[in-house]
Amino acid sequence: MSSGEITFGGETYDPESVDVLPPCEPTKIVCVGLNYANHAAEEGMDVPDRPLLFLKPPNAVSGHGDTVTLPAGKETVEHEVELGVVIGEQCRNVDAADADDVIAGYTVANDISNRDDQRVEQNWVRGKAFDNSCPLGPVLADPQDVPTNADVELRVNGEVRQSSNTEEFIFSVPELVEEITRYMTLEEGDVIITGTPAGVDALEDGDHVAVEIEGIGILEHDVAR
Amino acid sequence: MSSGEITFGGETYDPESVDVLPPCEPTKIVCVGLNYANHAAEEGMDVPDRPLLFLKPPNAVSGHGDTVTLPAGKETVEHEVELGVVIGEQCRNVDAADADDVIAGYTVANDISNRDDQRVEQNWVRGKAFDNSCPLGPVLADPQDVPTNADVELRVNGEVRQSSNTEEFIFSVPELVEEITRYMTLEEGDVIITGTPAGVDALEDGDHVAVEIEGIGILEHDVAR
Repeated sequence: MSSGEITFGGETYDPESVDVLPPCEPTKIVCVGLNYANHAAEEGMDVPDRPLLFLKPPNAVSGHGDTVTLPAGKETVEHEVELGVVIGEQCRNVDAADADDVIAGYTVANDISNRDDQRVEQNWVRGKAFDNSCPLGPVLADPQDVPTNADVELRVNGEVRQSSNTEEFIFSVPELVEEITRYMTLEEGDVIITGTPAGVDALEDGDHVAVEIEGIGILEHDVAR
Repeated sequence: MSSGEITFGGETYDPESVDVLPPCEPTKIVCVGLNYANHAAEEGMDVPDRPLLFLKPPNAVSGHGDTVTLPAGKETVEHEVELGVVIGEQCRNVDAADADDVIAGYTVANDISNRDDQRVEQNWVRGKAFDNSCPLGPVLADPQDVPTNADVELRVNGEVRQSSNTEEFIFSVPELVEEITRYMTLEEGDVIITGTPAGVDALEDGDHVAVEIEGIGILEHDVAR
């Protein structure tokens, strides 16, 4: 997406002239908290002994190039770069060893988090499930193009805020697929977002966010208060 | 549904010969915890000062007449009778005074809850979002047929386990619609389930559950371990 042109069906398009939709239409986004030890530390939380799970419903999806309007009247709303795993087929009770069979590919996600509410509610619904709280994109990358030690970086107005690598995961992608599908069916297009590294920080009106993962591309979006 | 026959399009059908589907296809089920003071007391929790919210994704839906298979290896999985509010149109930022405009009708829900996991996880995903954890039905009742003081009752193998009335709600249906739509868009077919009264208790293999709300009908399902 950052290479200057888009080719499809034998035609070439200027990226500026194209409205990029989200790379899939999830029935649910299953989210993982505290999957990098350095982020758990900055939040003052212990590393969990099994994945901390929460949910974002379809209203949370937004796309590359969108402007995300933050929930009204909240003091602290923060960015979280995350690797998104896009499911390729309906599945249940998938062993970690077979997880690659059900993964269509990878995308980039920003798990936008309203800390005012997240810090005071049992389930992170106001905190995590508000409209447009999960920009996804810019593409669905082939699994073979995304290494298991992919660099992840998030920049706000060009300033690097988060920089890490997916080899720091506490729970691997196959382990997450196994654990989640022990409880629920995943559908084609469903997404697992896999936790964020240290460096989360506040978003403000007018910010431009660039979220990059090696092998996938750069998801960009604007922010409005 | 309990009256012995179904009429539709001028034809009459034996209920035993009909496969009753869920009354809607939600993109999300927004759930309310601790909305009856007597249930908060039995769980040893304070009555919240705003609605306690959590989420069930579409994989949680099951229908009237289905057999619900409980998650494997869990000690305590309990029933919770709840009034289900079915949304009739896409909406956001709905004032309580206008909530009736976006409500298509009401249905009966059983918020099946895996306490083993619910009691130890931050967000109730393993505890509440597992497959078939939300039987809905048997019908979508017209709002005018369901009083604001509707009797609710849940029976297991004919024994009354829960018996209360929706006039005991801490937060009313219009208040819930306002609070939820301050954060997220609700879609046509989305469901709000509104909390359960005291009397929650364990489900076991072979149990037959009947969940009745005045003005709607009786949602029945079986349980398998």
